[in-house]
Amino acid sequence: MQIGGKHRRTIGLSQDGNSVWIIDQTKLPFAVELVDLKSCEDAARAIKEMWVRGAPLIGATAAYGLFLAMLEDSSDAHLQACCDRLMATRPTAYNLRWAIDRVRAKLSACPPSDRVDCARNDAAAICDEDVEICRKIGEFGLKILKDLARNNGGRRLELLTHCNAGWLATIDWGTATAPIYRAQQEGIDLHVWVGETRPRNQGASLTAFELLEQGVPHTLIVDNAGGHLMQHDKVDACIVGTDRTTRDGDVCNKIGTYLKALAAKANDVPFYVALPSTTIDWTIGDGVREVPIEERAPEEVSWMQGRNIAGDVQPFLISPADTPCANYAFDVTPAAYVTALITERGICAANAAAMAKLFGRSAN
Amino acid sequence: MQIGGKHRRTIGLSQDGNSVWIIDQTKLPFAVELVDLKSCEDAARAIKEMWVRGAPLIGATAAYGLFLAMLEDSSDAHLQACCDRLMATRPTAYNLRWAIDRVRAKLSACPPSDRVDCARNDAAAICDEDVEICRKIGEFGLKILKDLARNNGGRRLELLTHCNAGWLATIDWGTATAPIYRAQQEGIDLHVWVGETRPRNQGASLTAFELLEQGVPHTLIVDNAGGHLMQHDKVDACIVGTDRTTRDGDVCNKIGTYLKALAAKANDVPFYVALPSTTIDWTIGDGVREVPIEERAPEEVSWMQGRNIAGDVQPFLISPADTPCANYAFDVTPAAYVTALITERGICAANAAAMAKLFGRSAN
Repeated sequence: MQIGGKHRRTIGLSQDGNSVWIIDQTKLPFAVELVDLKSCEDAARAIKEMWVRGAPLIGATAAYGLFLAMLEDSSDAHLQACCDRLMATRPTAYNLRWAIDRVRAKLSACPPSDRVDCARNDAAAICDEDVEICRKIGEFGLKILKDLARNNGGRRLELLTHCNAGWLATIDWGTATAPIYRAQQEGIDLHVWVGETRPRNQGASLTAFELLEQGVPHTLIVDNAGGHLMQHDKVDACIVGTDRTTRDGDVCNKIGTYLKALAAKANDVPFYVALPSTTIDWTIGDGVREVPIEERAPEEVSWMQGRNIAGDVQPFLISPADTPCANYAFDVTPAAYVTALITERGICAANAAAMAKLFGRSAN
Repeated sequence: MQIGGKHRRTIGLSQDGNSVWIIDQTKLPFAVELVDLKSCEDAARAIKEMWVRGAPLIGATAAYGLFLAMLEDSSDAHLQACCDRLMATRPTAYNLRWAIDRVRAKLSACPPSDRVDCARNDAAAICDEDVEICRKIGEFGLKILKDLARNNGGRRLELLTHCNAGWLATIDWGTATAPIYRAQQEGIDLHVWVGETRPRNQGASLTAFELLEQGVPHTLIVDNAGGHLMQHDKVDACIVGTDRTTRDGDVCNKIGTYLKALAAKANDVPFYVALPSTTIDWTIGDGVREVPIEERAPEEVSWMQGRNIAGDVQPFLISPADTPCANYAFDVTPAAYVTALITERGICAANAAAMAKLFGRSAN
C-alpha cells in the first residue's frame, strides 16, 4: 500500500544483497524510518522490540533473519542456534514458528554451501506468498462488505477494528484491512472506527496512519468506546486480525479484542476475523486454556511515546511512579463470539468441522 | 482519606471565608496543587475543565459555586443566571442537577440578605452529608467484601475497578473505594486491578494515586485487559461508581464500564455499583435511550499529559495529527449486567421494584 502516495512493502532485501530493510514501526506515526538489519541478532531484536510486529510480518522477518544467519555461518549448529534465538522473541504469534519451521526444513535439506541462496529465495517466497494470501483475503472479505453495504439502507458502512491487522502487519494489503482497501477501490461508502489499542497504541499509531495515507475515512476512539458505539447501532461489523487461531476457532489477538467481541455478540453486530491459514495452530483446540499469553514489560503501560508541542518525540510517564503495572499482550476470543473467519481459501465458520473442511484436514 | 499521610477532604471553605479551595485534579498524580475558587465562574470552570470531577464532588462544587455567586450578587436574577451557568458545565452527572436544585430551592425561599449564609451552610451540609453517605456505602459494601473473602478459599480477594469512584470523586471515602478502604481497615487481604480509563486516565492518575497513598495493594492495567483477567479467574468482583443511575437500574458511568460488565457477566464475576442515592435519576427508566452522553473534545483522545524524563509535565500528541477522533465520555450498562447497587440505604438489586422499595417510592 502507500506511504506519501508511493507504493511500498514492509520488508525487503536491501540493494547490497547482504542486509534486509524494514520500517521501524516504533517511530510511526511521527516518522517513517527505514532500518537495515545486518545480522540474525538484528532481526531477533527487531521482532522482540517490535520494530516489526503483526503475525505475518514477524514470520517474514524471522525468515529473513535465517537468511542473515546463513550469511554469517551456514553450519547446522548456527542454524539451530539462530532458530532458537528467533523463536524466543515472541511467544504468542504462531506465524513465527511456522516461518522458522518452514525455512529450517528447507535449509536442513540442502548442503551448507547452498543455504544462503536457499534462505534468500524462501524468505522472498514467503513475502510474495503473503501478499497473494492477503489479496485473496481481501477478495473474500469484499464479498462480505458488499453484502453488508447492500443491506445497509443506503447508510455509510460503519466498521470497527482493533489494533493493526493492516498492511504494516503483513507485507502488503493487510489481513483485516485488505477487504477495506478492496471495498474502497470498489467505491463502497465506508468509515472505520479505529480503537487506539493500549498499551502500545497500534490502532492510533499504525492503523490510523495507514488509513490516513490510503485516504480511507476513519475516526480514532479509545478502546473503551467500542461497546457504546455498538450499543447505539454505530457499527455494522467488526473486523480484526489474529496472532493465533486454534483448530476449534478460538481467536488469540491483541488484548482487548475479547471485550469488543463480547459487545458485538450482545448487540448483534457481526464479528469477523481475517487471517492467513499460516496463523492457524492445528495443534491446539482450547485457546483460552492453551495459548500462552505473552506478558510484556510493565513500562509499556506506565510510559507512552508522544510528540510534545516543541515537536520532540519522547517517552512520557502517565501513572504514579510507584504504582505496579501488569501488561498482558493478548487475549483469546472464544469461537462462539466469532461470526466467521476470512481466509485466503474462503470464508468459514469458527469451528473445528468448518475449518477442517475448508482446509482439507480431518477434524478431531 | 490521606495524601502524604495527612487526612484531607477534596473541597472546603478557605480560611478567609470568601473563597473555596479544591485540589486541581488535572495535576495528579504528579503534583498536589490546591486552587482557590473566588467566583461562581471559577467554580463553573473547575467543573467544566475537570479540575474537579466525580458526580458527588461536582455536586458539592456547584453548591459552593452558588455560595460564591451569592457573595457576588444575591439577587434572583443572578441566582438564576449562575444556576444556568453551572448546569451547562457537564450534561451527564446527575448530582450536578440535584445539588443546584437543592441549593436554589433553599435560596429562593429566603430573602437576598440571608442568601450568603444560607448557601454557605447548605454547601457545607452537602459535603458533610456526602461524607456520611460514603461512610455508609463503605459499611454496606464491606459486608459484600467480607462474604466474598470468606468464600474465597483463603486466596487474596481480587477486585477490579474502572475510572475513579474514589475519595477524590467525592468529599471523603469515595463510593466504589469506600468498601475497599473499610475492608483494608478490617484486615481483609485484598488487591485491586485498576483500569487506566482512557482517555483521561482517571484510573491511572487518580485511583492508582489514591490506593498508593492509602497503602492498598493494586496493579494498573490497560482498559483492554479486564476481559482477559476475568476469563482467567483473576477477578473475584468488579466494583465501580456511577454518574447517573436510572430508576430501572441502568448505570451510566465512565466510558468502558459497559465492556467490563459484559465480561463480568460472561465469566460469572459479580458486578457491583456503589452510589449515593443522589445519583439516581428517578425521572428516567431506559438508560441506553434516555441518558444524554457527553461528547468531549477530540483532543482528549489525541493528546495526553505525562511527565518526561527531564521531569516536565507536558501534553503530548499520540496519534497522527490529521486523524479525526471521537470522544464519548460515558456509556450505559443495562441493569441486567449489574449484580447489585450498594447505596447509603443498603444493598439492592438493579431493578425498578427493588430500588423503589429501598427508597420508599412507588415503582412505576
